[in-house]
Amino acid sequence: MYKNFDELASDVLALAKEIMPDRLIFINSLNDQHQIVLKLSDTDTKIRLTEGKVLNLDQTLCNRIDFEINEPLIYEDIKRESCLDSIRGTLEEANINSYVGIPISLVDGERFGTLCVGHHEASHFDKKSINMLQRIARMFSSYLDLERLAYKDSLTGLYNRQYLYKYFEEFPAAEGVLFFIDLDGFKKVNDEYGHDTGDQALKEVALRLQGFIKESQDAFAVRLGGDEFLLNFPHIASRDEINMLGHGLINCLNTWDKEYQLSASIGIVPYRADSAIKLNTLLKDADNAMYRAKAAGKNNYKVFDCVENSAS
Amino acid sequence: MYKNFDELASDVLALAKEIMPDRLIFINSLNDQHQIVLKLSDTDTKIRLTEGKVLNLDQTLCNRIDFEINEPLIYEDIKRESCLDSIRGTLEEANINSYVGIPISLVDGERFGTLCVGHHEASHFDKKSINMLQRIARMFSSYLDLERLAYKDSLTGLYNRQYLYKYFEEFPAAEGVLFFIDLDGFKKVNDEYGHDTGDQALKEVALRLQGFIKESQDAFAVRLGGDEFLLNFPHIASRDEINMLGHGLINCLNTWDKEYQLSASIGIVPYRADSAIKLNTLLKDADNAMYRAKAAGKNNYKVFDCVENSAS
Repeated sequence: MYKNFDELASDVLALAKEIMPDRLIFINSLNDQHQIVLKLSDTDTKIRLTEGKVLNLDQTLCNRIDFEINEPLIYEDIKRESCLDSIRGTLEEANINSYVGIPISLVDGERFGTLCVGHHEASHFDKKSINMLQRIARMFSSYLDLERLAYKDSLTGLYNRQYLYKYFEEFPAAEGVLFFIDLDGFKKVNDEYGHDTGDQALKEVALRLQGFIKESQDAFAVRLGGDEFLLNFPHIASRDEINMLGHGLINCLNTWDKEYQLSASIGIVPYRADSAIKLNTLLKDADNAMYRAKAAGKNNYKVFDCVENSAS
Repeated sequence: MYKNFDELASDVLALAKEIMPDRLIFINSLNDQHQIVLKLSDTDTKIRLTEGKVLNLDQTLCNRIDFEINEPLIYEDIKRESCLDSIRGTLEEANINSYVGIPISLVDGERFGTLCVGHHEASHFDKKSINMLQRIARMFSSYLDLERLAYKDSLTGLYNRQYLYKYFEEFPAAEGVLFFIDLDGFKKVNDEYGHDTGDQALKEVALRLQGFIKESQDAFAVRLGGDEFLLNFPHIASRDEINMLGHGLINCLNTWDKEYQLSASIGIVPYRADSAIKLNTLLKDADNAMYRAKAAGKNNYKVFDCVENSAS
């Protein structure tokens, strides 16, 4: 299996390059405002694009692709296309004079981005090659779709346990802090108001967690199962930061204007870059700390202290 | 996303064919005894292989691929390879005189099969093309790996809820019978003996269910979540067959030589080929029938009757 997006993108670009050997191939992601160049097949090219470059969407060729009809957009001689005059400056800056853009949509209709071919001169793109590029794009998007299915919790849209294990396999030497969250009072919600209400509550918790981590670089949220969640903050280390996040998280989850009330008991485990991290051990430590938070009256957090080998 | 294996295999073969235009490309699965030809890039070829052909493994070239080192096996002129004399007959029968076989392994080391190139004459395979085939094989196997991850329950190895929905999307006009299984007494096991024991019990249930469906063509088992399971039998229709399976399944799940006892309450829903099947409705009907089985004292089954619109 591909370890990360970059490995997958390398294979996609190498195959596309084999189909169109003399062209630059590049993969882009699109959001509402920007096109981001994710990866190029070549670095030494007459086209002036670099990986990571962010373009204003209204200035790009990819923005003209119709994702509904899901067909490639082809310009064989950009200089002669008067319809492109409004973005002429950007095209000349990038030195692109012929272009194919293949839309990459995900299964829920969401637009991921594009697989593109560019050349600094006008050039002809034969139908068969474009058909091959479409097949490559289809394999690519199918993989991305499956990856989402495999690594996301279907109820809440958060990452799932598999993703967490994959993350720790990929970054075994990372450092960070895990927040292991067990809801207080969730069983009662399920029992008294039914599973539908319970599911709604879990979705609301997921939304709040996503909001909570939004400002923290590279942090992510996981639903481990049932009413157990986990946050990972890779760039947090000091005890002050941990306490600030702990307090914030407790308050983020203990106010509900519903017929039911929920709160969270949280076990926190910092882990170091220089230690051989075992995720199972971390989860066990986090679980221990969480149980201490439960025992201390719920709606609070405890930090597992590796040095003293006891929860603080 | 690919609807099924055939769609994926078509893209794989088309891309490989683009890399080696004048050769036959074919995908095979391997088990301990046989090689099965799953799909060919061409039907009109001088090589005598057909889709679905089953070959004795010890008579095949693919059997000589070393899956451990994960490298392609290449024979450019089979007639001159004296090491192949023991399978000369099979090779002449298939009219293969040059060959590349690329191993396709899954992430757990399991051997899936091979992506092969064959030609009726001796021929040279250049390194770059073989490298491209390896990339295609890598995308292929990565997709298969992810698919497994996406559609299997990680605890029990049974299919998961996503697979069930995918199945009903793919075969909307199928007929069959659903057995919706809710364990009796599982919560007690978790509460009294802990989650580890509970997980062991769920794994044991999964094993029993797999054994139970083994003889039924195309039947499959799903873990819906928690202690809820589901069996689908596509070729069962008569009430006698349903009752026989119902009794069998009850007995399959109510005998335990453990410190705990479990049994199952089962809701059964037959569905017809000519009706517009809605999986959610079927699951709701099955759930209703299952609750009637619980109410009637557990350790038994009830059949939901669509005609009378009441459970029998």
